[in-house]
Amino acid sequence: MPDSFFHPVSGFELPRFAGVPTFMRLPLVDLDHPRLKDVRIGLIGAPWDGGTTNRPGPRHGPRQLRDMSTMIRAQNGATGVRPFELVNCADLGDVGPNPASVDDSLKRMTDFYDKVVAAGIVPLSAGGDHLCSLPILRALAKDRPLGMIHFDSHTDLYKSYFGGMLYTHGTPFRRAVEEGLLDPKRVVQIGIRGTAYDNEDRDFAASVGIRVIPIEEFHARGPEDVMTEAREIVGLGETYVSYDIDFVDPAFAPGTGTPEVGGPNSFQALQVARLLDGVNIVGADLVEVSPPFDATGGTAFLGVSIMFELLCNMAVSLTSGR
Amino acid sequence: MPDSFFHPVSGFELPRFAGVPTFMRLPLVDLDHPRLKDVRIGLIGAPWDGGTTNRPGPRHGPRQLRDMSTMIRAQNGATGVRPFELVNCADLGDVGPNPASVDDSLKRMTDFYDKVVAAGIVPLSAGGDHLCSLPILRALAKDRPLGMIHFDSHTDLYKSYFGGMLYTHGTPFRRAVEEGLLDPKRVVQIGIRGTAYDNEDRDFAASVGIRVIPIEEFHARGPEDVMTEAREIVGLGETYVSYDIDFVDPAFAPGTGTPEVGGPNSFQALQVARLLDGVNIVGADLVEVSPPFDATGGTAFLGVSIMFELLCNMAVSLTSGR
Amino acid sequence: MPDSFFHPVSGFELPRFAGVPTFMRLPLVDLDHPRLKDVRIGLIGAPWDGGTTNRPGPRHGPRQLRDMSTMIRAQNGATGVRPFELVNCADLGDVGPNPASVDDSLKRMTDFYDKVVAAGIVPLSAGGDHLCSLPILRALAKDRPLGMIHFDSHTDLYKSYFGGMLYTHGTPFRRAVEEGLLDPKRVVQIGIRGTAYDNEDRDFAASVGIRVIPIEEFHARGPEDVMTEAREIVGLGETYVSYDIDFVDPAFAPGTGTPEVGGPNSFQALQVARLLDGVNIVGADLVEVSPPFDATGGTAFLGVSIMFELLCNMAVSLTSGR
Amino acid sequence: MPDSFFHPVSGFELPRFAGVPTFMRLPLVDLDHPRLKDVRIGLIGAPWDGGTTNRPGPRHGPRQLRDMSTMIRAQNGATGVRPFELVNCADLGDVGPNPASVDDSLKRMTDFYDKVVAAGIVPLSAGGDHLCSLPILRALAKDRPLGMIHFDSHTDLYKSYFGGMLYTHGTPFRRAVEEGLLDPKRVVQIGIRGTAYDNEDRDFAASVGIRVIPIEEFHARGPEDVMTEAREIVGLGETYVSYDIDFVDPAFAPGTGTPEVGGPNSFQALQVARLLDGVNIVGADLVEVSPPFDATGGTAFLGVSIMFELLCNMAVSLTSGR
Amino acid sequence: MPDSFFHPVSGFELPRFAGVPTFMRLPLVDLDHPRLKDVRIGLIGAPWDGGTTNRPGPRHGPRQLRDMSTMIRAQNGATGVRPFELVNCADLGDVGPNPASVDDSLKRMTDFYDKVVAAGIVPLSAGGDHLCSLPILRALAKDRPLGMIHFDSHTDLYKSYFGGMLYTHGTPFRRAVEEGLLDPKRVVQIGIRGTAYDNEDRDFAASVGIRVIPIEEFHARGPEDVMTEAREIVGLGETYVSYDIDFVDPAFAPGTGTPEVGGPNSFQALQVARLLDGVNIVGADLVEVSPPFDATGGTAFLGVSIMFELLCNMAVSLTSGR
Amino acid sequence: MPDSFFHPVSGFELPRFAGVPTFMRLPLVDLDHPRLKDVRIGLIGAPWDGGTTNRPGPRHGPRQLRDMSTMIRAQNGATGVRPFELVNCADLGDVGPNPASVDDSLKRMTDFYDKVVAAGIVPLSAGGDHLCSLPILRALAKDRPLGMIHFDSHTDLYKSYFGGMLYTHGTPFRRAVEEGLLDPKRVVQIGIRGTAYDNEDRDFAASVGIRVIPIEEFHARGPEDVMTEAREIVGLGETYVSYDIDFVDPAFAPGTGTPEVGGPNSFQALQVARLLDGVNIVGADLVEVSPPFDATGGTAFLGVSIMFELLCNMAVSLTSGR
Repeated sequence: MPDSFFHPVSGFELPRFAGVPTFMRLPLVDLDHPRLKDVRIGLIGAPWDGGTTNRPGPRHGPRQLRDMSTMIRAQNGATGVRPFELVNCADLGDVGPNPASVDDSLKRMTDFYDKVVAAGIVPLSAGGDHLCSLPILRALAKDRPLGMIHFDSHTDLYKSYFGGMLYTHGTPFRRAVEEGLLDPKRVVQIGIRGTAYDNEDRDFAASVGIRVIPIEEFHARGPEDVMTEAREIVGLGETYVSYDIDFVDPAFAPGTGTPEVGGPNSFQALQVARLLDGVNIVGADLVEVSPPFDATGGTAFLGVSIMFELLCNMAVSLTSGR
Repeated sequence: MPDSFFHPVSGFELPRFAGVPTFMRLPLVDLDHPRLKDVRIGLIGAPWDGGTTNRPGPRHGPRQLRDMSTMIRAQNGATGVRPFELVNCADLGDVGPNPASVDDSLKRMTDFYDKVVAAGIVPLSAGGDHLCSLPILRALAKDRPLGMIHFDSHTDLYKSYFGGMLYTHGTPFRRAVEEGLLDPKRVVQIGIRGTAYDNEDRDFAASVGIRVIPIEEFHARGPEDVMTEAREIVGLGETYVSYDIDFVDPAFAPGTGTPEVGGPNSFQALQVARLLDGVNIVGADLVEVSPPFDATGGTAFLGVSIMFELLCNMAVSLTSGR
Repeated sequence: MPDSFFHPVSGFELPRFAGVPTFMRLPLVDLDHPRLKDVRIGLIGAPWDGGTTNRPGPRHGPRQLRDMSTMIRAQNGATGVRPFELVNCADLGDVGPNPASVDDSLKRMTDFYDKVVAAGIVPLSAGGDHLCSLPILRALAKDRPLGMIHFDSHTDLYKSYFGGMLYTHGTPFRRAVEEGLLDPKRVVQIGIRGTAYDNEDRDFAASVGIRVIPIEEFHARGPEDVMTEAREIVGLGETYVSYDIDFVDPAFAPGTGTPEVGGPNSFQALQVARLLDGVNIVGADLVEVSPPFDATGGTAFLGVSIMFELLCNMAVSLTSGR
Repeated sequence: MPDSFFHPVSGFELPRFAGVPTFMRLPLVDLDHPRLKDVRIGLIGAPWDGGTTNRPGPRHGPRQLRDMSTMIRAQNGATGVRPFELVNCADLGDVGPNPASVDDSLKRMTDFYDKVVAAGIVPLSAGGDHLCSLPILRALAKDRPLGMIHFDSHTDLYKSYFGGMLYTHGTPFRRAVEEGLLDPKRVVQIGIRGTAYDNEDRDFAASVGIRVIPIEEFHARGPEDVMTEAREIVGLGETYVSYDIDFVDPAFAPGTGTPEVGGPNSFQALQVARLLDGVNIVGADLVEVSPPFDATGGTAFLGVSIMFELLCNMAVSLTSGR
Repeated sequence: MPDSFFHPVSGFELPRFAGVPTFMRLPLVDLDHPRLKDVRIGLIGAPWDGGTTNRPGPRHGPRQLRDMSTMIRAQNGATGVRPFELVNCADLGDVGPNPASVDDSLKRMTDFYDKVVAAGIVPLSAGGDHLCSLPILRALAKDRPLGMIHFDSHTDLYKSYFGGMLYTHGTPFRRAVEEGLLDPKRVVQIGIRGTAYDNEDRDFAASVGIRVIPIEEFHARGPEDVMTEAREIVGLGETYVSYDIDFVDPAFAPGTGTPEVGGPNSFQALQVARLLDGVNIVGADLVEVSPPFDATGGTAFLGVSIMFELLCNMAVSLTSGR
Repeated sequence: MPDSFFHPVSGFELPRFAGVPTFMRLPLVDLDHPRLKDVRIGLIGAPWDGGTTNRPGPRHGPRQLRDMSTMIRAQNGATGVRPFELVNCADLGDVGPNPASVDDSLKRMTDFYDKVVAAGIVPLSAGGDHLCSLPILRALAKDRPLGMIHFDSHTDLYKSYFGGMLYTHGTPFRRAVEEGLLDPKRVVQIGIRGTAYDNEDRDFAASVGIRVIPIEEFHARGPEDVMTEAREIVGLGETYVSYDIDFVDPAFAPGTGTPEVGGPNSFQALQVARLLDGVNIVGADLVEVSPPFDATGGTAFLGVSIMFELLCNMAVSLTSGR
């Protein structure tokens, strides 16, 4: 049972529109804070979109996600889990990127997450674009490859863009496999759809053993069956969860830069996160929320609702005696 | 067959963008109007959101609902019912609230509905926030408790907010049960979801016999099965229908103050209203449409589409010889 | 295999936000262009909404559709079809309407499409309101009636509006049947819903043999079953496909003037277009995208995603040896 | 002193967001109403934009103007005039246009205003596009030409559009001069600016004696000096005032279809209307408010604020013993 | 010179879109923080709009103002003042209101500001609606009346609303005068405009000696002359500054609930705040920023730009040896 | 007199909402086009915002500017100039940037403009962020420094950002001076305002002789006086004009990433461009229009209106015999 310092503020006490917005109204504990050592799950903002090839904006994601997260309450309505009573959770603040340098930003992010890992904290990150997942994995998977469950409408497995550019939001997991951060046999990508440049990404997936579940299969089989397979693919080993908000249909999540129509609805969006139950999650992210494309905050609210489902599973996992 | 005075204006005659907007282009018959005595179903605006604990706005709901209601035509596309030819319907105008006093507003609203009841008119109200349902029930259920079918993502059964505040949009049905306005054994709440403060509301529901159907059960069983149970719960007795627009998923109804993702789609939103067929409806409301959160009017258009389904069932019920 | 002149610009080369936007980044080949004779499928804008009876705006549709179409890539993600490698496709520009005259606009449009037909080009048009389909059919079906698969929430079969007006977006297919442009026995209308004025349109449909599949039936049977019937109705004969974006639920396609709630989702919206596989399509349109009602462009992006599905089927059909 | 029937509802009694919105919360008195004969100034909606050559939308103007007009109170803050206590004012409802026919709409409008004139009512109209002024003038100036003070960024004096179209929102005052409805020597146009097709309109103005005051002159001389000249031009004779909202800079009035940057600010926009003091106004209009281009309603609020200034001058004029 | 703890984060170090947003990127020092005693100027959010009679929303003001305030840099561009180097400034967080009770909210606010005053901190508050100024004045002016410079389009001097309601955003300064919190002879109200209910407020002002400068006078004399008079009215005594964002024209500040057209532009809006130079400011507020009416944040950015001007003058005043 | 190939399409012929949008409806003449050699003024899109340190978006500027530019007609309303009849103008398309590399983008841009210069074409560019001006100057000022009139709210003269980053939109003119592309004695910056980091930029300006005219001076002296000085500073020598849309007040130009309140209005925004009359302009740009922050297009319309004023002066200058 965490001490009261880590309890989020209740909307019964302070109205949800009041107060400086931290993730889920948790205490702000930056890397120099004396209570850092007591944190088990750290919510982190990664306000960087330097890998974006089309419409930028996810750099503004963490702020809007924090804002909307003040509408999250203490208890999971579906499962009854009360994560903040299971483990100490805190908002660790934002990683500071360098908007003028991709290389320096990648380095800054890995440095930040190195400290998070060193403090024994499991990170739940809010992007930022999908290139953010790469420096996070570099910190988390330093010494052994991880499995990954990846929700997205794109594989993000392309080799390069614009004549050889290796670091964009369309390439992070190609790099992660090449760098040995991911065990491709324990990687599954769910929800892939939209028009394609060609088959280069899927050919790579096939060649290394990544399982791709396109949206047609997802709709045909349903979330429960698909997630059963996903859990089997990653097994009991350490697993990263990467959730691109464009996995969800743009009617439910318009605030993103590269939408693809025909995706899951919001109930399914929560359901797949809930069905991670039992997965050994060592880190997770929710990326590509782009406030300029949804000023209403609806996308961000869905995003934090998904983050809460991830958090519940992470909290249960950390306290389940594994 | 109602006389022509009560016929709505047709879009074939006057384009739907023209004219002062009344509900469904019906005549405006205020409480002093000589034709009041001939009205059977009264559409009423309740522009009040004094019970809102988070994001205000539903006070602007009736105006936007009237505006979008000019796109409603005379005939139900699915059932063929032509309600305006079955019974005399009219727009009774708005209840005037007191934005500076919760108590006075509650009193003003009950006074208004007392007159509506005295005139033998069945009210179909447009909120306003959900606290509006309480003063309506005080007028309708003065002498005996009603059953209720309640569509919502929240139970609205909490005891109090902010240190003892009894009257908010999170408490109306707790009060209604306490005051004997509702027979809890004949109350069903459908669509409940979202993060929760705690179990206090559901424990109360269980203790008095209110049936709560959470969204997971709704999605698993489907609208038809759920509504069959709902009709059984209320039986043949007098029943109030309270429809909070946040029952519907926020992709379909973003214009509301306390959205919860993962809800029904718009087809299901209509379907559950249509499946009230045969219920003995003595009053109904559609609440929590908040225009500041959906300037496009899409939420309001869904709202009036639901109101039309409710109206059709009310009109059939009133003429079915019961 | 088309020559490189007709290859769209790739987002790997020129970022998708750059460049003057043509449909799907194809070359602009107007009716005087020397390469016109080499085009097989022509994408055409019909920026006219002179038939609109309620909320105007589709005149701005082609421009927004072109803008969003720069996010379409070269390959169908679901089927693997690469249409631009099958046949020469080009953007033929816009038909110039006369905003001050319905009659002159109808004439200008038919004149334009006469030239398209004369050049042996199969047109895929972007409206504009639904009245645009009439002058297109006048050019395409000059000498024999066509079959039609029609996705819409309205039948557009009314006789007249506002005291005898024959040409509005609610009447085009009544006119087309009367003029012998459509063979009503080979016409199917899918997705019909919403409140109705009366039964006049459906009575006409029944009297001439048009098959109307209302939305309740669509949801009950599912897209695959419905589309099997639709393909049977039109058979192997020449068929026009008319796709009103208001077929799709307004949560997915808010940018339209006469929305009706309760429609298909975006996956189904693509699915029905994909299930036109094997239909002998001699022309198609996507109409009623109204940018003033969706400044975000989400509706237009769905629209061009549907157009891409139509295009794939048209390209396969043209190269299948029929 | 008007009787209490014609008093607008006060925001001290009924909150301004409540109630069915009529112009300035006045009673709705349609042409068949028994109190019509007691009305001196009639506020009329003209929801028609059939003359629009570029971006449509003003057909939705009257409804939004009524909505925002509920924020207008009873007294002019600058002059102290209380118009509703000087003369009986009422909302006469909307003229019903025919969206599918320019000719029929023109006829319907003139017929409506004929009745208004016959009832001895001075009309203050809310458009609609600027072509609406023509049928109004046809009713008002049946037997003698009027003077006109015209605020606009365009002269609306072009001969024709699109190859001979005589009736668009760019031509009404050319027609009015040709038809003898306006005395060009008593016409002044203020605020003209923006890029031009050519000099055809200004050459016509010069040839018939219309005074054009371009925006550069307006800014150089200031509103007071310009309006002194304007009052001299129209003199004591009967005068129509036509106020196109695009006279005002689009930062203050974005909700219009043909904006031109560089216009007056909102204080000047009110000031010029206030400086009509003493003009013998026999009718006035405020046109081209286009809600699709300003969903916030700010343009409409400016529009009704201008209408209130016009109304104050009309009320004073009617009671000044002239 | 303040210690480095109180230095705001620079945009040269951490990009302005990154980090949890506090006012002007200052440290968050709540009332229990150990460094509270070292703060001289406290920036405080008052997220409460319980006094709003028409369109609610200012309860969301502080959050949006904090968000946009991250674009404020360290130095006044016009005067060169670097306030954060003159005195210790901090963000003291939000006062927690009770959305369900006006009385309890007023009490909570006064209690909060009592502590601020007790700590020797000069408050610069961000509303919230204008009723917020009353409980602040109750804390600040406990023992002697203050002078006040009040920028607004409304006097907020009405006696009551809705049949005797004493506490709304239209009455705070009537109450403040009655309670002896303000010395009416040292009160000036600048920018008053818009339609009026009647003269009741201005009659009261005249009767107690409050100087009202209507907008016509403001525009005629110019900001410098008006502010010279304002400074003379308050003299050297302790003065409160209350700045309602609706003082500014709604084209520059659309995000507010009761706009009045015809106001100052944004340069003048800054200028009048800058011309408070030399005034003995003991507290200030910026109120009525309502995010639901300006999702772009432009109004909030103007608001924090004004707050920065106020802050500069307060910082200079505190260090000027008075 | 240019041949008809270079005449823009008239709105009298093709409605302004129709047609693929090129700049001012001019022909699209890319660098390989046979008519390139006949172009004198080339309108060029530079869709790149890789230098943006805060809120991205100007990469989308050229497309929205082209869209809104279809509302520009052939003649300057104030001066009567008809630029398209003076010299051959064309849309040269977009420079293709590399969103993943600042260095490569700078190189691509200079390469493109090298070709433009080689073809003897005077470029009028539409950004993109302000870093775009640097590679343009590198092409234009290869062999001698230019003078510059620079409209902006920022000096863009900072040395570096984020620990040494030399290429951002806050540094281009520091680089240009260092590289000898600008003659600082012939550079004037007009409209500078907003909060500042420090004095580093202005100290640099002073040290090299750049004249900075802050907004307070601009408002005090007026546009005519300021522009007289500006013309004197640059004299008769070759001059570049760089116009950052954030020069204009954000009420008139909200669509930009780093707004500063208190700027000129739209009339002044045009006026200063018109007052470049007589300046020997060898190139010009309009930058920092950011569509995500103004979906309405109002900012872009102001932007193209300014571009048209620039174009008129450039056309007159090219034909004036200098």
